[in-house]
Amino acid sequence: MAPLRSYVGGSWHVPGDEGVPVHDAVTGEEVARVSSAGVDFGAALEHGRRTGGPALREMTFHQRAALLKSLASHLREHREELYALSLRTGATRGDAKFDVDGGIGALFSYSSRGRRELPNARVLPDGAVEPLGRGGTFVAQHVHTPLRGVAVQINAFNFPVWGPLEKLAPAFVAGVPSLVKPAGQTAYVTARLVELIVESGILPEGSLQLVCGGAGDLFEHLTEQDLVAFTGSAATAQKLRTHPVVAARSVRFNAEADSLNCSILGPDATPDTAEFGLFVRQLVTEMTVKAGQKCTAIRRAFVPAELLDAVAEAAAAELAAVTVGHPADPAVRMGPLASLGQREEVRRALKALVQAGSVVFGDPDRVAVTGADVERGAFVSPVLLRVDDPARPEPHEVEAFGPVSTLMPYTSAAEVTELAARGQGSLVGSVVTADHDFAREVVLGAAPWHGRLLVLDAESAAESTGHGSPLPVLVHGGPGRAGGGEEMGGIRGVLRHMARTAVQGSPATLAAVTGRWVPGAARHTGGGHPFRKHLEDLRPGDTVVAGPRRVELADIEHFAEFTGDTFYAHTDEEAARANPFFAGRVAHGYLIVSLAAGLFVHPDPGPVLANYGLEDLRFLTPVYPGDELTVTLTAKRIDPREGAEYGEVRWDADVTKQDGSSVARYDVLTLVAKREP
Amino acid sequence: MAPLRSYVGGSWHVPGDEGVPVHDAVTGEEVARVSSAGVDFGAALEHGRRTGGPALREMTFHQRAALLKSLASHLREHREELYALSLRTGATRGDAKFDVDGGIGALFSYSSRGRRELPNARVLPDGAVEPLGRGGTFVAQHVHTPLRGVAVQINAFNFPVWGPLEKLAPAFVAGVPSLVKPAGQTAYVTARLVELIVESGILPEGSLQLVCGGAGDLFEHLTEQDLVAFTGSAATAQKLRTHPVVAARSVRFNAEADSLNCSILGPDATPDTAEFGLFVRQLVTEMTVKAGQKCTAIRRAFVPAELLDAVAEAAAAELAAVTVGHPADPAVRMGPLASLGQREEVRRALKALVQAGSVVFGDPDRVAVTGADVERGAFVSPVLLRVDDPARPEPHEVEAFGPVSTLMPYTSAAEVTELAARGQGSLVGSVVTADHDFAREVVLGAAPWHGRLLVLDAESAAESTGHGSPLPVLVHGGPGRAGGGEEMGGIRGVLRHMARTAVQGSPATLAAVTGRWVPGAARHTGGGHPFRKHLEDLRPGDTVVAGPRRVELADIEHFAEFTGDTFYAHTDEEAARANPFFAGRVAHGYLIVSLAAGLFVHPDPGPVLANYGLEDLRFLTPVYPGDELTVTLTAKRIDPREGAEYGEVRWDADVTKQDGSSVARYDVLTLVAKREP
Repeated sequence: MAPLRSYVGGSWHVPGDEGVPVHDAVTGEEVARVSSAGVDFGAALEHGRRTGGPALREMTFHQRAALLKSLASHLREHREELYALSLRTGATRGDAKFDVDGGIGALFSYSSRGRRELPNARVLPDGAVEPLGRGGTFVAQHVHTPLRGVAVQINAFNFPVWGPLEKLAPAFVAGVPSLVKPAGQTAYVTARLVELIVESGILPEGSLQLVCGGAGDLFEHLTEQDLVAFTGSAATAQKLRTHPVVAARSVRFNAEADSLNCSILGPDATPDTAEFGLFVRQLVTEMTVKAGQKCTAIRRAFVPAELLDAVAEAAAAELAAVTVGHPADPAVRMGPLASLGQREEVRRALKALVQAGSVVFGDPDRVAVTGADVERGAFVSPVLLRVDDPARPEPHEVEAFGPVSTLMPYTSAAEVTELAARGQGSLVGSVVTADHDFAREVVLGAAPWHGRLLVLDAESAAESTGHGSPLPVLVHGGPGRAGGGEEMGGIRGVLRHMARTAVQGSPATLAAVTGRWVPGAARHTGGGHPFRKHLEDLRPGDTVVAGPRRVELADIEHFAEFTGDTFYAHTDEEAARANPFFAGRVAHGYLIVSLAAGLFVHPDPGPVLANYGLEDLRFLTPVYPGDELTVTLTAKRIDPREGAEYGEVRWDADVTKQDGSSVARYDVLTLVAKREP
Repeated sequence: MAPLRSYVGGSWHVPGDEGVPVHDAVTGEEVARVSSAGVDFGAALEHGRRTGGPALREMTFHQRAALLKSLASHLREHREELYALSLRTGATRGDAKFDVDGGIGALFSYSSRGRRELPNARVLPDGAVEPLGRGGTFVAQHVHTPLRGVAVQINAFNFPVWGPLEKLAPAFVAGVPSLVKPAGQTAYVTARLVELIVESGILPEGSLQLVCGGAGDLFEHLTEQDLVAFTGSAATAQKLRTHPVVAARSVRFNAEADSLNCSILGPDATPDTAEFGLFVRQLVTEMTVKAGQKCTAIRRAFVPAELLDAVAEAAAAELAAVTVGHPADPAVRMGPLASLGQREEVRRALKALVQAGSVVFGDPDRVAVTGADVERGAFVSPVLLRVDDPARPEPHEVEAFGPVSTLMPYTSAAEVTELAARGQGSLVGSVVTADHDFAREVVLGAAPWHGRLLVLDAESAAESTGHGSPLPVLVHGGPGRAGGGEEMGGIRGVLRHMARTAVQGSPATLAAVTGRWVPGAARHTGGGHPFRKHLEDLRPGDTVVAGPRRVELADIEHFAEFTGDTFYAHTDEEAARANPFFAGRVAHGYLIVSLAAGLFVHPDPGPVLANYGLEDLRFLTPVYPGDELTVTLTAKRIDPREGAEYGEVRWDADVTKQDGSSVARYDVLTLVAKREP
């Protein structure tokens, strides 16, 4: 059998040796060989930097996001093939959907978030413009720009599709090329995935490379512009993190390591409650999905001491109904582990765990199997343990990366919060309770040790995605033992692939750098009313100054009556004067912005189609009868929408009165048409 | 001389040995001794975790920020003493102000930002509430909670006051105790600073500890809840970063190392321009302030090839006017280096640099000195070098941490951007130009290699804080050689001391956890109009539902006429229908929010004092004549203001029409009075 090819430097590389065999988790047959022999890692990184990076950076966030959507749609057409291939890794159809559909979902999610939450631009301002001097001639703006290196993505064996895609998506939106290195055990699934992607021709060349097999001297070639995203064991994470090149060049290193995640049953959740059943069902699900080979699985289940027997009994009964066997068999709920080697490791860990307590369900050495040869496949029974002394170290330190979990008792919210922390950092924890006070205490107490915390109750159960499911819009990672990293989390994941730089200078300079108008930069009032300009003709800084309009007491009284807003500050001179902020009757804030619109709007049909919102409105100075309002409206950001006949334009509105002071400042959000095509 | 004491475990620890002597930079006299002999590092960390952490976490962000302000005011009273002590480190009065006033300024800045930009609460939500299911029963909110460990802050010798304070301030606001370890050479200044702080009694016990002398086995006691902020050499950063405990427990490690920062003169800046003079003056300033012992100093000065001679000449002339000598002498512009050891290192580096080019100004081995004994002090001349071949490696790799800089020529924006990147990561770079296109190209090209980039021109010069000054509101740090870390940056620096956790659950659960009303959580409409409630009586979820109010065509026409907003979509049926978003004439968005206010406002004087703004207003569905509006206003966030008679209340406003669809959603910002005292 020829070893899997790698995709590097723009072509498929055939390894220079026979490679290492990988075996079918069910039958033990050889299913693939992996080797990176002959891969020039330095050249691959340079290909990413010199070909992939520039191609990505030529596009805007929205354009990159749009490609991800095409890619997701393309892969969705090929799901069945990936499900079928996944059977050989031991994954049931449900397991494979979790992996494959989860990965495609991450692409869709990043595509949608990228277009909704990022500008259609190449640079992303971060935070507000910071005034640095009183005169307004020196300001700063933080900006995010794409790192100029390669995102090296080292994935674990358990999610050969989701793993690469959830790492690719944020890097791609950021404009950073990826080099994917799957774990050997399931590399053939990832290799097929990358073949499908490359064949589609959707992604620009150099934006995705694949190396099957060992990492060789890859790390020797890293620079300060590259980053490493690693998912796998804590021991490997530690080794890679301290690699001399990583340390010397401050290479961004993100680790996601499996952790001793816990689930906590609330004291309110007695066997007659919905939450009791939810807890037991979730525990059994987390033990058996992917045969428990999930970094997020529940390893420690904390239960009120008086409920421990009841939970053990209920969980054992549910586990007894789990059929183990060939993953292709629809009756089978749990397939084998990924390899015989994994089974050995699980059994070794179980030996250590059993010393601390007793077995509630399952035999570490024996399992009944449906539709497969128990001798050849990596089958193992779900094993539920019970440790009555939660102070024992084993359940907090020893991880069996399989269908294994340990029940432990607790007696107070404070105690169980401390027990949760004994995992020394976890990807996720869950609290199953309908008691909001208990939830609050445990969540806030345990939060610093967790990347994600899920509270499950009858109210959320029907829609809850469950303890074990990382979501693209939420951060995935955890402190300490979980690796100290963070992946995904929507746009947060994009930013991790970008450099943040504080840029200081005059407003005009910052406007030139960011492509946005910056307060203090020149305003252009020539060239006609900016509402008469199509999107392509508008420039940041295009301005209309309109007014003045005098606000009479009669206007205020009329507005109060017309709108019904008869708040005393507008209608009762004496009461208004007693208010700490006003010297007498004042105009309504809503009247001010309404009059301002009356001043700046151009009445005729034209490119400005609609005002769809307002942001950051602040009323800064009261407006009294007799004050005269002038409004200055300046185009601040112009975002064409890809594939639409219009785009978004954000305007800076500054309403001043006769003494020049600002009475209101805000951003007006409009949709502006492009020119006729 | 007794060695400096450390402040650990709530008391002043006298070292158990004689310590290592530290010498006056000017006279060579022994000025202090440092030793950490006998310090129990494990106990010190535990003291921070068990005493300082809980005391800090009991306070809100605003309460902690207020203490920083008191501390800053207290230290300001003692500035002169710190200036005087700084003389012995070689610092002129100007240098000492940079250090002392800069540190105090960081405290003030964090105090002000903390109160302005953070809620008066203990938990900080991050980003928006994320809906995770269509039914709205399962949502998520990221939250920041303080890490439960200690911020170990290892500072460099060059800023004995600013260094500790800029690290303390964000940790303190976050609610994380600090353990400060100054560099031996100037530890006596930091020790006096900490004495002043401890004597003031302003900070809660355990929130600040001090260790003078070596770090002993400190790192052995770190956990996943501690963090390390290191400023110093790249070599030490690398050693500490790969410490087995740091790696194994994923301890957050932030490094700020000196880097080969560059300054670039634009091709437009010929000798007749203001920018030419600004460039030369800034270069000389950066070389001589703190005798060039600044991580941010300019080491590489890139100049258009045709201007190299002119710049060399002008800079040499300015350098010739710099008086070197006793820092107490008002005529002296540059004092000595911090120690004779530092001078040796600078001379060693100069030897390597000189091989690549020539000396424009200064003698590496000789200097004329005013008011001091040149034999005893660590005096050195400013040395300006010139390397005509910028491809030589030395100027991009060898750092002389003193008054040393190297001029190099370039010929294009693309070339100089690449040359800037050859520093392999810098804290800061500057571009001196009035050409916005050149500025944009160089800034965006060089940004991924820089933590901060300053553009200097005649417009910003008067207010510019200059190349070398990190500011509390801007990030300070840089990739690669600069350590790959980030400090300060306003609230960004606070967040680096907090854990981010994605919390999932029902809206009611998330409301309980965050203390804020979450869409989907229960609304309480009993108990009277919420505008009648004082701040202490309001609860998140308190709601008023008001309406309906029917919008007639006459209302729209009247509003158009009254405000002047005669946009065709409100006034011309046919034209409105031609608009892609409308089926006919629509009500003004400003009319909708004005009518909504008319519905929810309570007219009489009461606790609600003012509406000071609006956030996140989106118009979601057009309102047509005949539609009936109902508004639901719900208290969402309640932030008492410390020491004021009122606080801020943010309300969720949802305006719906007769079919239940939302026509507008926004947040209303109000000031609400507390009860009479």
